[in-house]
Amino acid sequence: MSDLSRLSFNSQTAKNWPLPELIEAAARSGLGGVGLWREPVQRTGIERVAHLVRAAGLEVTSLCRGGFFTAPDAAARRDRIDDNRRAIEEAALLGAQTLVLVCGGLPPGSRDLAGARGMVADAIAELAPFAGEHGVVLAIEPMHPMYCSDRGVISSLRQARLLAERFPAGQVGVLVDAYHVWWDPELAAELALLGPRIAGFQVCDWVTPLPTGVLTGRGMVGEGAIDLRALRREVERSGYRGLTEVEIFSTRLWERSGSEVLAEACRQYLAHVV
Amino acid sequence: MSDLSRLSFNSQTAKNWPLPELIEAAARSGLGGVGLWREPVQRTGIERVAHLVRAAGLEVTSLCRGGFFTAPDAAARRDRIDDNRRAIEEAALLGAQTLVLVCGGLPPGSRDLAGARGMVADAIAELAPFAGEHGVVLAIEPMHPMYCSDRGVISSLRQARLLAERFPAGQVGVLVDAYHVWWDPELAAELALLGPRIAGFQVCDWVTPLPTGVLTGRGMVGEGAIDLRALRREVERSGYRGLTEVEIFSTRLWERSGSEVLAEACRQYLAHVV
Repeated sequence: MSDLSRLSFNSQTAKNWPLPELIEAAARSGLGGVGLWREPVQRTGIERVAHLVRAAGLEVTSLCRGGFFTAPDAAARRDRIDDNRRAIEEAALLGAQTLVLVCGGLPPGSRDLAGARGMVADAIAELAPFAGEHGVVLAIEPMHPMYCSDRGVISSLRQARLLAERFPAGQVGVLVDAYHVWWDPELAAELALLGPRIAGFQVCDWVTPLPTGVLTGRGMVGEGAIDLRALRREVERSGYRGLTEVEIFSTRLWERSGSEVLAEACRQYLAHVV
Repeated sequence: MSDLSRLSFNSQTAKNWPLPELIEAAARSGLGGVGLWREPVQRTGIERVAHLVRAAGLEVTSLCRGGFFTAPDAAARRDRIDDNRRAIEEAALLGAQTLVLVCGGLPPGSRDLAGARGMVADAIAELAPFAGEHGVVLAIEPMHPMYCSDRGVISSLRQARLLAERFPAGQVGVLVDAYHVWWDPELAAELALLGPRIAGFQVCDWVTPLPTGVLTGRGMVGEGAIDLRALRREVERSGYRGLTEVEIFSTRLWERSGSEVLAEACRQYLAHVV
């Protein structure tokens, strides 16, 4: 049987599949890990999920998501920091290696991109030691520039790296998601510079036309424009030794059964990534 | 009256407006220039358009568009080079300062991004002297990364600059379109490095949600996330002395009368750009 032990399955790829079933199926299929999201974890019960993944022998390669640090006023920013502290505690409870940070877009009505980026840096500075104490790495996720205004003002690997490097590697790293970074002319150079800062590696594929809102039109691994095998090799050449996580937001996939989507993700991973 | 002499109106912003009317209205409103597209110019007749803009005392700040250099086979790439030669001749006939290059996406079915970028570099190398002889600057337009797979594999100002710098400044420059580059963390640094390589400056605004296909959802100047005034200042600080061209692809604007859209663009330019 082909080896899936380096593969992790992000639960949002089959978001309507109850977590206990998803975890059981991932383990039975021979996967090495799962990526989790806070809301479904809370619905199932965090203690229960923590027990299930441990019993199944699965790594939790990521917990999604912290971040959303950009807010118009100090009180709102304080609330978000507090929420991120809870997320860090949840990640620690689950044994998750990273908390993924989707850093937030421009505050409503604002055009102050530099200011928003400053808010992100300030928030990470405040949270980094707390994350380190909990054994959780904050994984800054540079978002595709098409999300700059409304989801994530950290737009490139280089920008994420320069921000992460202000902190110890045990506190802050960078998540490399193929969907967000595949186009970057600096990709190879930045991966080499990132080295041990790579805190996670996610794959899906780039397919067009993009749907309205550009959020839920990701392609299954292997059906799009990204040379995922070459990217996986570059990521590993930089020293990354973690799992490869399949994370796909797709209205088309969400209509199908979770077990079918998992099976397809495994096949496509073997055909196009390893 | 407020000064519109540094403003140019790209005809695609009101694409259903007959060119002779558009040119006449732009001149009457006190604009300094127009940006033109090959197909409507051909429909009206290139000699006639050349005469109209000259008689109206308008600059032609750009001719759109050349490029689309990426093709699966050598014969198709040769056809595109030939078509770009014709576009350069048309630009010269119109007195256009630049031919805008939308360089092309990945060839169908290809995942070889480096290869596609190589095709672009090869094509520009072949065309640059021909452009220089005709007094036309090839303006490489870095495209927003959301167009990387299907329209333009040149994705950042830095990448465009490094490519342009292989050639004399009189042959190859870079078009700075706010929509494509506003998110770039290297924006200010790259504009400073570009200096006299900036061959044109286009504005519109970034509004969300993006529509299906992400092509025709640009915002009117001033209604979105981009700090256009700050960007215009940076562009001018780098030494750019050309006009600011309003270019907006918007299904919403295309439903309105051209004269109404031109009037609104002028008002918004005065309120948000100068």
